[in-house]
Amino acid sequence: MPDNLEWKGQQCPIPLSQYPKIIMAHGSGGKLTRDLIHRMFEPILKNQYLDQGHDGAVLENPDARIVMTTDSHVIQPLFFPGSDIGKLSVFGTVNDLAMCGATPRWLSLSLIMEEGLEMETLWKVIQSIGEAAKESNIQIVTGDTKVIDRKGDGELLINTTGVGTLDHTQSVGPSEIRPGDKIILSGDIGRHGIAVLSSREGLSFETEIMSDCAPLHRIVLQLLENDIPIHCMRDCTRGGMATALVELADQSQTHFELREDVVPVNETVQGACELFGLDPFYVANEGRFVLFVPESSADKALELIHSHSEGKEAIVIGSVKEKPKGSVTAANAYGGRRILDLLTGDQLPRIC
Amino acid sequence: MPDNLEWKGQQCPIPLSQYPKIIMAHGSGGKLTRDLIHRMFEPILKNQYLDQGHDGAVLENPDARIVMTTDSHVIQPLFFPGSDIGKLSVFGTVNDLAMCGATPRWLSLSLIMEEGLEMETLWKVIQSIGEAAKESNIQIVTGDTKVIDRKGDGELLINTTGVGTLDHTQSVGPSEIRPGDKIILSGDIGRHGIAVLSSREGLSFETEIMSDCAPLHRIVLQLLENDIPIHCMRDCTRGGMATALVELADQSQTHFELREDVVPVNETVQGACELFGLDPFYVANEGRFVLFVPESSADKALELIHSHSEGKEAIVIGSVKEKPKGSVTAANAYGGRRILDLLTGDQLPRIC
Repeated sequence: MPDNLEWKGQQCPIPLSQYPKIIMAHGSGGKLTRDLIHRMFEPILKNQYLDQGHDGAVLENPDARIVMTTDSHVIQPLFFPGSDIGKLSVFGTVNDLAMCGATPRWLSLSLIMEEGLEMETLWKVIQSIGEAAKESNIQIVTGDTKVIDRKGDGELLINTTGVGTLDHTQSVGPSEIRPGDKIILSGDIGRHGIAVLSSREGLSFETEIMSDCAPLHRIVLQLLENDIPIHCMRDCTRGGMATALVELADQSQTHFELREDVVPVNETVQGACELFGLDPFYVANEGRFVLFVPESSADKALELIHSHSEGKEAIVIGSVKEKPKGSVTAANAYGGRRILDLLTGDQLPRIC
Repeated sequence: MPDNLEWKGQQCPIPLSQYPKIIMAHGSGGKLTRDLIHRMFEPILKNQYLDQGHDGAVLENPDARIVMTTDSHVIQPLFFPGSDIGKLSVFGTVNDLAMCGATPRWLSLSLIMEEGLEMETLWKVIQSIGEAAKESNIQIVTGDTKVIDRKGDGELLINTTGVGTLDHTQSVGPSEIRPGDKIILSGDIGRHGIAVLSSREGLSFETEIMSDCAPLHRIVLQLLENDIPIHCMRDCTRGGMATALVELADQSQTHFELREDVVPVNETVQGACELFGLDPFYVANEGRFVLFVPESSADKALELIHSHSEGKEAIVIGSVKEKPKGSVTAANAYGGRRILDLLTGDQLPRIC
């Protein structure tokens, strides 16, 4: 095994001949833990907060209202077409902050590694995390490293918890949804789920499906800067667009009426869904969200979203009605109508 | 199996005849996930932040400086003499905030469950988390629930990330440590590690060793309220008191001179350490910390710490010297002296 593994022009700082894989002592809090942190993590993630070298990080907060959100990422496999667990675990939490209308600021990073995890894999994931944090303009301010004994194939689980600031006075959340609101979807759905599934099953399609994994804060912050009155947003992750909408209809006690035929689904994704017996409305996304705005602001909002590459297919997919409260219906092109509900089973496990 | 399992006067809200164990669909984001959250978690953890029902929680922050810290808990077994993973995962993060001089405020809770986890176990842990949060005066404001496929015996891993506020103007951290400072240890060491080890190995001693797992914020906040000039604090968790001190000597580039014979170690803990070939200086604690204060404040600090049950054995164990920089030595009663260093291996895995 080459000692000086290279990736993206960087050399792995841990000699692979010595530690090709993670061992229990990497989680002991002793020499090997410190080595991993100082030699591998710090050069990639370095900033003034981590430099404090304390149990936690002291943050200067310029605003009185902050937002906090957490997500553990258990996706399998760790690398899949279009993204990997590193990017996912940063963008996933950045997107949850953005959905609350917050500017992403600070991130904690907690790694749970199973002994036997390939050192090379860990190193690539940490690099990915560093890149994603830079792209999201969020700083990793504190972290934790644990190793658990081997039961699988060297698993890696990542928790990220994010804190953002509310730099505006709008109130954004399910309770702000109003009858008459337009429902905008930011792009085509189902890519992430199908990308992970095909990579897991070793399937290939004529056109490779790439995950839509992307940070959404740029779109959201631009909407806020342009004074679009955002009533609510939610990213369409685990459980897909349908689950996000069913939850919001329930929380806001309103009714959502969708037009099924306008929801963009890539042809290959549609084909894969038919093959696997999946409903694209329920397939996971990692860079798509639904947005609720008053009808009068819908055109302007769409125009702004379209100016971002991750929002160029955004479209109005329906509107909010008063009742039947807490339900979502989708009308097809032929006048038929189906009620959307939460899934009872697990369509696609370990998707995020 | 009884459907109406009782514990501490409460009834388990999930019918055990239906779901005696966690299944993959509990992590799907669909009906079963919602059931678990609404029926089991919410009644125990309910507060106005979780009620926001959004991807994250909006927090009103009365102060300009906040502290953030994260910890994943992978301890085995989940219940051990004196505590359990639920209490540990709250107190662990509360203590990290306290060590930074912060008042604990908000906590995120992320559960990673392996399918097969006993529903009863989960329910007891959630209750424990609720109790510990109340005792620590910290609010659980946001959460996440994931299920991974079965490889072990129904594991439970918990990440908690905490945010606290700095309600004083003192600067607390390794860079504030000064030659001449006294080093105070808050109580006897080694209990947590030996409690977990004996429970893991099925050993019993004449006197049962209970973990010292406890929240430390009350002591710390009282010291701050009384204007004790705290230079630095660190809890003596994974890697024990020695690891905490070696790290701090390195970070502060000073020398610590300890008196080994004054460090309190319970007799049974001492015996168990001899039996297992462990050094109590390196055995994990979950309710002990070291404190650095100027010599002139040491007596007053000790008096305040002694007024708390978790600090009644606090004692000065040494002092800070200028050099040799970055090292720690311990003198024994016979004039001998040893150098403390970081452990190379893993003395006791999965201890926190």
